[in-house]
Amino acid sequence: MDRAVGVGLLGFGTVGGGVVEIIERHQQELQHKVGCPVEVKKVLVRDKKKDRSIVIDEHLLTEQADEVISSPDVDIVMEVMGGIEETKKLLIKALNNKKHIVTANKDLMALHGAELLQLASDKGCDLFYEASVAGGIPILKGLSDGLSADRITKMMGIVNGTTNYILTKMSHEGRSYDEVLQQAQELGFAESDPTADVEGLDAARKMAILATLGFSSKVELDDVSVKGISNVSDADLYYSHQLGYTMKLIGLAKRDEGRIEISVQPTLLPHQHPLSSVHNEYNAVYVYGEAVGETMFYGPGAGALPTATAAMSDLVQVIRNMRLGVNGKSVQGPLTKSVLKDDQEIESQYFIRLKVVDRAGTFSTITSLFAEYEVSFEKLLQLPVDGEAAAEVIIITHKTNKANYQLLMNTLEELAVVHSVESSYRVEGGQ
Amino acid sequence: MDRAVGVGLLGFGTVGGGVVEIIERHQQELQHKVGCPVEVKKVLVRDKKKDRSIVIDEHLLTEQADEVISSPDVDIVMEVMGGIEETKKLLIKALNNKKHIVTANKDLMALHGAELLQLASDKGCDLFYEASVAGGIPILKGLSDGLSADRITKMMGIVNGTTNYILTKMSHEGRSYDEVLQQAQELGFAESDPTADVEGLDAARKMAILATLGFSSKVELDDVSVKGISNVSDADLYYSHQLGYTMKLIGLAKRDEGRIEISVQPTLLPHQHPLSSVHNEYNAVYVYGEAVGETMFYGPGAGALPTATAAMSDLVQVIRNMRLGVNGKSVQGPLTKSVLKDDQEIESQYFIRLKVVDRAGTFSTITSLFAEYEVSFEKLLQLPVDGEAAAEVIIITHKTNKANYQLLMNTLEELAVVHSVESSYRVEGGQ
Repeated sequence: MDRAVGVGLLGFGTVGGGVVEIIERHQQELQHKVGCPVEVKKVLVRDKKKDRSIVIDEHLLTEQADEVISSPDVDIVMEVMGGIEETKKLLIKALNNKKHIVTANKDLMALHGAELLQLASDKGCDLFYEASVAGGIPILKGLSDGLSADRITKMMGIVNGTTNYILTKMSHEGRSYDEVLQQAQELGFAESDPTADVEGLDAARKMAILATLGFSSKVELDDVSVKGISNVSDADLYYSHQLGYTMKLIGLAKRDEGRIEISVQPTLLPHQHPLSSVHNEYNAVYVYGEAVGETMFYGPGAGALPTATAAMSDLVQVIRNMRLGVNGKSVQGPLTKSVLKDDQEIESQYFIRLKVVDRAGTFSTITSLFAEYEVSFEKLLQLPVDGEAAAEVIIITHKTNKANYQLLMNTLEELAVVHSVESSYRVEGGQ
Repeated sequence: MDRAVGVGLLGFGTVGGGVVEIIERHQQELQHKVGCPVEVKKVLVRDKKKDRSIVIDEHLLTEQADEVISSPDVDIVMEVMGGIEETKKLLIKALNNKKHIVTANKDLMALHGAELLQLASDKGCDLFYEASVAGGIPILKGLSDGLSADRITKMMGIVNGTTNYILTKMSHEGRSYDEVLQQAQELGFAESDPTADVEGLDAARKMAILATLGFSSKVELDDVSVKGISNVSDADLYYSHQLGYTMKLIGLAKRDEGRIEISVQPTLLPHQHPLSSVHNEYNAVYVYGEAVGETMFYGPGAGALPTATAAMSDLVQVIRNMRLGVNGKSVQGPLTKSVLKDDQEIESQYFIRLKVVDRAGTFSTITSLFAEYEVSFEKLLQLPVDGEAAAEVIIITHKTNKANYQLLMNTLEELAVVHSVESSYRVEGGQ
């Protein structure tokens, strides 16, 4: 058996603990797969004295990052500490020291991934980041290896567990957003400050990473149009369910003839769509390739062990590459620059819920406005509102472009017969 | 740009045609991914004169296998002709000529995979077979790379599109097996001789390949216990649906402490199980890893382009390895010998449907027999049978071992109060 490969950890929270646990518990399988022992050599922690649930030789702990990233015993640095600018500096230093990198840091990769990958390549080092997107689901390897020969034209991801948990509970139990969010916080499925999750920022980072890899095209975080779920009402879920749809927070990345659209927004999907059955905190990424057609990768989107498993699969890849002597030798070509579609090119169906004046002529006023903007109806539901001279109208449109849709929505608000536009969502997976 | 890599095809049916189409249509992306042109150099066909829908330079066609497997222009042989013994000889000759192999042949790999892989390794050649299991789903790469660091303990696969199509139609439309099979044959979803599909043999081959890879343990085709769907009745589907289950033909591979069970059989899954939403001709493989937990890979299980895409992803891998100079350098250790569980160790729930004499005491006779074999009830449904002094009893048992279950079933048949045991199925994914 060859000499052990040395692993240094930056961070020792839940994912770091999971990595240490897997390296220990699965040592035999690991050796079987890579042909040599794998040993944790150094672990950066904030406070060496802190009580820990994971048993670890305390001589391995250090409060000095340099003892990890500059140690001659460390071949591979696993970054599971989070953070952006300071962490980036540490990884640059580690790469300059010829350490291979495995990171679970989506924030860092969404912002500085291209730069770090270039440096890694220059230094002959691997830099893998499977754990940064969709936890335990091997989606990045699926895109870069499994579907490598295909031309991917569309990805739809449920890539945030917190929001999927909230929408599932709202939808199955008919409860309000605030009520479910509070319960999710008590159960640990949502952070005490849930903004990054519920407003879609976390999902946007993951979609930027997915789109960059899937389309071989540099997609920036700022390219992602983002809308969260904090304004989704139980009524929206109720009516969409009646009309045959399930609401999910969907990260959507599409390309047509080299032009890209990318967004994160609450989206209605037909009940029979594979993503509609992805419940609770689970994640899934639906990938459409020109040749393969529909595929979907499903699994746990977060959690110490699933995320650690993804990081470990990267570790295995790095060690295999070390033993083959091919680290950092990417044979994939450079990324193209991505060109975003304009609103005229973004086609979709929409769900629109209006409260309208309940009198003769209302409907004809509304339908002529829709006709004016060339937006036609696929489904329609009208219901009286109890105790008011008002009616609720829910429309599922046929496909239209986003420019027309936005003009329509602006004008709808101003119609005298419309009390209010209650809500509006994109509809995908139909037609 | 470096010199082109030469590809030789053995076979030019639907998958072979798909390969040629993808190499042509996606040439630019391919070059981007592997850094050199990829060219089809020779194609073995039965009859050069036959009319073909795919346009191909007829100088590339040959009726002599040797012109493919011994051509100095061919670096990689893609085997998409099917067949077992003759095909094996051709591949052995190709490997002896130092050609890398990509094959879509599940029959061959289920029977002779270990031998061929060993020869490939000895010759410094790659031999990849992603397309042999579940068409366009990159499940083999998912197991060998994505989940490489985890210990996989359970796999459940819907790996045969024909049977999934038939069960979906029977279940959704309340039609009989014979009726749906006939329609499936007319639509081309089932072969004119559907035996290998409907009796579970096709699925068994794929499960042997999956289990060998997922458990790093040599699982033989003969190890797979196989039952098909030809005796599934619409009544079985109706009652299982009423009790909250969906019936699927499930390939199940489990290991506990190094002992393995592997089977293909009609199985009931709770409606909310991810595999329950896999409809029509789609395939999916559900993988449980100790660390990652539940994951699922979903996609088209057959079809020219999906299967060709899987073969193409292998081709990309071979070419990347060629450019890195690492073909055939597997760093994975040898397979362990698999030890099968005996019936006492195989634990499961069961669905049992009986027709019984409708008189006082029947139920108590049956329940005391169940108690004798330590099989307890989770759910129970009793219904009168129209116009007969009989009742239908449907039981979902708690978990029991297969030995007890079989003793129970043998004795049930002999009870005077039991007219007949109508059907019985394994139940998975609960408890």
